[in-house]
Amino acid sequence: MIYSNTEFYYAIPDQIDDSNIILINEEAKHLHQVMRRTVGDIVYVTDGMGHIYESIISLISKSNVILKIQSKQTQNNKLQHITFCIPILKSSDRFEFALEKCGELGITNFIIYSAKKSYKRGVKLERWEKILIAAMKQSLQSFKPNITFMDKLTFSKSGNTLNIIFDQLAEKSFSDILTDNEKSKNINFIFGPEGGLTQNEIVSFDNSKLLKLTDNRLRAETAVISAASLLSTISVKK
Amino acid sequence: MIYSNTEFYYAIPDQIDDSNIILINEEAKHLHQVMRRTVGDIVYVTDGMGHIYESIISLISKSNVILKIQSKQTQNNKLQHITFCIPILKSSDRFEFALEKCGELGITNFIIYSAKKSYKRGVKLERWEKILIAAMKQSLQSFKPNITFMDKLTFSKSGNTLNIIFDQLAEKSFSDILTDNEKSKNINFIFGPEGGLTQNEIVSFDNSKLLKLTDNRLRAETAVISAASLLSTISVKK
Repeated sequence: MIYSNTEFYYAIPDQIDDSNIILINEEAKHLHQVMRRTVGDIVYVTDGMGHIYESIISLISKSNVILKIQSKQTQNNKLQHITFCIPILKSSDRFEFALEKCGELGITNFIIYSAKKSYKRGVKLERWEKILIAAMKQSLQSFKPNITFMDKLTFSKSGNTLNIIFDQLAEKSFSDILTDNEKSKNINFIFGPEGGLTQNEIVSFDNSKLLKLTDNRLRAETAVISAASLLSTISVKK
Repeated sequence: MIYSNTEFYYAIPDQIDDSNIILINEEAKHLHQVMRRTVGDIVYVTDGMGHIYESIISLISKSNVILKIQSKQTQNNKLQHITFCIPILKSSDRFEFALEKCGELGITNFIIYSAKKSYKRGVKLERWEKILIAAMKQSLQSFKPNITFMDKLTFSKSGNTLNIIFDQLAEKSFSDILTDNEKSKNINFIFGPEGGLTQNEIVSFDNSKLLKLTDNRLRAETAVISAASLLSTISVKK
């Protein structure tokens, strides 16, 4: 199904039963006040769990919108084994822009952390989640991103997880990993802050590999967006 | 040579002779007022023509800085056959962010144009060039980007140029083109505005191919940044 010229709405599973969906708050407002949709229109709703519902607007009230489900599709999360570990950056604009781009490009697991050289700005999980849900809808995807915060980035030991640390001075490049059989493992992509990761931080991650993205020195947020672009583009369905 | 922990300065070729470089205006100010460099320090200067000069600060005056050249290196512009054709976008923040990312990722040829569905904002060539020069220096590159504006995007016919148009509904994906022998041709990457290119615009380009970047619907600026990421990462030196 081609959704290209439409918009997605988001409803949590609790708002969906076998035959109806109820949109509330911002989603309901957006549908009738911004998009000017009316009763009888067909719209698409995702539950953020990989499902897309084609549905018909059956009732618009002041505070919510009732939709009748016509059909249901299931998407596959191609990047569910990937987690992006992103430090809080100095510029919240650049940080949020990177987050939005990652969301659009299909990254769904995020750990935001304070690196040694991070600027300790406010942790705005709610705001970041909002950005990611908007990006999910914008890009017509159906997986609500998971985002958590860690004051110090640590992982429980697991043989099936690989930690990839991006470092401009690394000798291996991103494309080397893509031919690896490690593609099927869970992979944490660990990005550094503006001043880079410290040596202590780098050695603290077990089972890790240092990789560089490109020969150019990239800003922190550019590395994040580039890695997301690469993952998204390489996993494109032919 | 590894420049990773330094900063680049920019001087036009007229400011460089066989043995000395003179930095003026913003570059001179940045060197001594922001970076606090002093006489005797080693700094790197690019002429924007692919050369990098290792040089020693020999004099700092109120309005300029004199550097003595120690050695000269030449870089190779791996993406010189690529031109990014980007429409003016509705949000100048998003547009400028995309431009900066392209610069960091090594794209050096830009045509900014008004698409049929573009928002006709001001054409700020001088400002855009400044963003690109800053990105060049930031990412430790030595090719000053070329940026021009076209009110209507048109190309003179040339058998050696391929036009690639990004379209979400295209069947071929970016990775298909990369295995092509067309890699050696000059390639214009044509991006659409928020509302997309019109059918008339699409058919107006000779020798063109429609490609999609990923299965997700991307914002205009995200498509631009993703394509730049892909080109940059794939051309990485092993």
